[in-house]
Amino acid sequence: MAKELTKRTTDYSQWYNELVAQADLAEHSAVRGCMVIKPYGYAIWENMQAVLDKMFKETGHVNAYFPLFVPKSLFEAEEKNAEGFAKECAVVTHYRLKADPDKPGKLMVDPDSKLEEELIVRPTSEAIIWKTYKGWIQSYRDLPLLINQWANVVRWEMKTRLFLRTTEFLWQEGHTAHATREEAIIETEKMLGVYAEFAENFLAIPVLRGIKSANERFAGAEETYCIEALMQDGKALQAGTSHFLGQNFAKAFDVKFASKEGKLEYVWATSWGVSTRLMGALIMAHSDDNGLILPPKMAPIQVVIVPIYKTDEEHARIIEHVSILKKELEEKNIRVKFDDRDTQRPGFKFAEHELRGVPVRLGIGPKDLENGKIELARRDTLTKISVDRSEVVNIVFGLMDEIQNSMFNAALQRQQSSTHIVDTFEEFEAALEKGGFIHAHWDGTPETEQKIKEKTKATIRCIPLNNKMEDGKCIFSGNPSSQRVVFARAY
Amino acid sequence: MAKELTKRTTDYSQWYNELVAQADLAEHSAVRGCMVIKPYGYAIWENMQAVLDKMFKETGHVNAYFPLFVPKSLFEAEEKNAEGFAKECAVVTHYRLKADPDKPGKLMVDPDSKLEEELIVRPTSEAIIWKTYKGWIQSYRDLPLLINQWANVVRWEMKTRLFLRTTEFLWQEGHTAHATREEAIIETEKMLGVYAEFAENFLAIPVLRGIKSANERFAGAEETYCIEALMQDGKALQAGTSHFLGQNFAKAFDVKFASKEGKLEYVWATSWGVSTRLMGALIMAHSDDNGLILPPKMAPIQVVIVPIYKTDEEHARIIEHVSILKKELEEKNIRVKFDDRDTQRPGFKFAEHELRGVPVRLGIGPKDLENGKIELARRDTLTKISVDRSEVVNIVFGLMDEIQNSMFNAALQRQQSSTHIVDTFEEFEAALEKGGFIHAHWDGTPETEQKIKEKTKATIRCIPLNNKMEDGKCIFSGNPSSQRVVFARAY
Repeated sequence: MAKELTKRTTDYSQWYNELVAQADLAEHSAVRGCMVIKPYGYAIWENMQAVLDKMFKETGHVNAYFPLFVPKSLFEAEEKNAEGFAKECAVVTHYRLKADPDKPGKLMVDPDSKLEEELIVRPTSEAIIWKTYKGWIQSYRDLPLLINQWANVVRWEMKTRLFLRTTEFLWQEGHTAHATREEAIIETEKMLGVYAEFAENFLAIPVLRGIKSANERFAGAEETYCIEALMQDGKALQAGTSHFLGQNFAKAFDVKFASKEGKLEYVWATSWGVSTRLMGALIMAHSDDNGLILPPKMAPIQVVIVPIYKTDEEHARIIEHVSILKKELEEKNIRVKFDDRDTQRPGFKFAEHELRGVPVRLGIGPKDLENGKIELARRDTLTKISVDRSEVVNIVFGLMDEIQNSMFNAALQRQQSSTHIVDTFEEFEAALEKGGFIHAHWDGTPETEQKIKEKTKATIRCIPLNNKMEDGKCIFSGNPSSQRVVFARAY
Repeated sequence: MAKELTKRTTDYSQWYNELVAQADLAEHSAVRGCMVIKPYGYAIWENMQAVLDKMFKETGHVNAYFPLFVPKSLFEAEEKNAEGFAKECAVVTHYRLKADPDKPGKLMVDPDSKLEEELIVRPTSEAIIWKTYKGWIQSYRDLPLLINQWANVVRWEMKTRLFLRTTEFLWQEGHTAHATREEAIIETEKMLGVYAEFAENFLAIPVLRGIKSANERFAGAEETYCIEALMQDGKALQAGTSHFLGQNFAKAFDVKFASKEGKLEYVWATSWGVSTRLMGALIMAHSDDNGLILPPKMAPIQVVIVPIYKTDEEHARIIEHVSILKKELEEKNIRVKFDDRDTQRPGFKFAEHELRGVPVRLGIGPKDLENGKIELARRDTLTKISVDRSEVVNIVFGLMDEIQNSMFNAALQRQQSSTHIVDTFEEFEAALEKGGFIHAHWDGTPETEQKIKEKTKATIRCIPLNNKMEDGKCIFSGNPSSQRVVFARAY
């Protein structure tokens, strides 16, 4: 701790980097593009995992684990998927080191340990999983197969940023197999719904639900559904994707099942994932120039209690008082920390917990004890009030929901006020300067999309689900269009 | 499902392989030496993780995540550790694939993507973590650092067996940093205690707690503590290790702290881990010729209810009845499954749940409904009784603890009856034929240990903690010895 953060208005990107570092969320490692997720950041990720895992299980999924490595011959089996990831694959070629004869104490790769077939470190697991599913699926009785995996994956990114784009990241990837096209599509949409519910009700981030254009589709998918969130700088962030894979992987790995009617048919597939990227979304959707702001449902510490005292006797009285208060709060399932460090002053602690986004801070001094009062500071609004000791537990309990909702509403308001509807390319460019989601007509061709991207760096984030059909003209080509799509610059 | 398992007495190893496959725990993958952990096996691993994670947190540890890759120069920094793992390292040398000009649709490693420095896929994370700790530790105020990581690791094993020895496996690794030698040793022993408690109270496996001989020590450790379990075939299995690393890694990575007295000192370290190997221990410690036997605390399904009926009307009445029973059991926090599949007959279901080790099975037919009875089958003892409907919930609830304890006691009895105290090499060899833990005098030299291993395949499993001091003569060399150590053949 901790110099002041750069202001968001001065340099948003710098603000983000400083916040991630100073709030102890993550840092760069000695390995190019790979991050260390620090304990406080990891505790938030664990909260995300716990909620998502429960949601997956409640929708009938089970967890399993598949290998980290994919033999090259499997990797290349589904050609589009392989092509999509080929340029960013870490490749294992050897399996042994030996003493370097020229450099005492140093090691070298043993050339005799060259693998006959190279192994790809999984950038995603469709290939290895569908190779496995071939052994698991014979009949319609084996379907649906509803499996999720929590894992690390590696994509060799050239430009990396903590949480947003790292060479290794943590994620979950669901991989399901179905007897019919319809059932697979329903699953794809259901999991998009799970992601949207998670983003809105737990991360307090409103999202657009939509479908990707062909250009932005997952390599190997027939349709990619996504949720798109808006960050405070007006850039969009893809927060989760759910893919309808058709029969592409079933065909690549020859996975057929005997239907009820006894016919052999290819299996239908979906896959869906969210990653530690959500940490970046959580940070950028809510935080301010003082640091992180966490929605209570995701906060490792929901309430911090800071004692303020001069004498040992005062300190002792506060400890006694807090031990009861803490227990009362914990009985309401509130995650409480009593920050009784004697190495730091209250002012330092206040700033630190503010930086780390603890939703509620309670300050207790000798005068408060006498008056039966406690000072309550709310992180999201930075407001302070003095509350009666007798009411504090109920007030804090109520604040958990209130802050959660208030943060969602604030983010929703930001999203709405940054949503633009434009009809001309001039309006489009002007809106892009302001940032946000831009609803505009597009002629539906990849070429136009590509040209708009080259000219403005804006991409089609999604074609919203249940989109209003409306005749219009493409803002770029002037060709006819039947609906508006959502453009933005994006992370 | 499922031909009969090979009997344990016929071929223990074959029995194990068949059980793992037929009980749907794991299978070999398309990647050499790597396994797929199937949903049922993974659910057991999740139960292990949940208990251990809670125990770690209750002892003051937090989770974090460090990179999968270790640059070679870091890997070789602690020489003994590097030497210990060099021969089994997967090495990433390239970061890109490209279309193979000679083989349409195929990919090849792009030679232009060769890394300047090779990356080792972590076989263990001391190197990358201590490189990171250097940035986190300046003063005694930063200590202790008590961090755990749940991760996958890779060790290129030549001979692999599902769960017991696989190229990739899942584990947790704790890495702690301390200001004093004493504190680090206390931590090492504390975590050994956590592992022992977990093995005995949750896996129902009695373990010896002890210290490894120098030959069997973790590469880079000053002292390796271990828990050793006995399998039913009389072979030992190392079920967890806790290492006192001294200042070896602090010196290799130059990690010093300013003490209270203002002196710069090297930090003291521990590391400790258990892995999916525990799945192998759990299987082999308890199961029988009918399949897996799970202690209730680890069982994904603790009670399965199987309906037995002929007519739709009977079926409907049973469903109604079971829905109430299931709720009553779930209110007691019992994990219940109602196996109402109409694709399988009751006999098939009985055998399947037996194979999968479900602790309690309840069978309900039309006669039972009339008589107010339920048939209760206990997996560990294979006993069946008819119980009153009014008592079944309490009986099942009580059985959860009773089965847990009874399994532990049965395993303890097997361990004790397979524990031999020998004084001569002849007795030693005879005891080895019977299998089990053999307490024998040893002269304390690595040479003697090595010779005994070469001659008998037995290794020193541990020098028990709180061992009785007792003068004697080494069974091999005849040289004086001050205590008995524990030998066994081991997995």
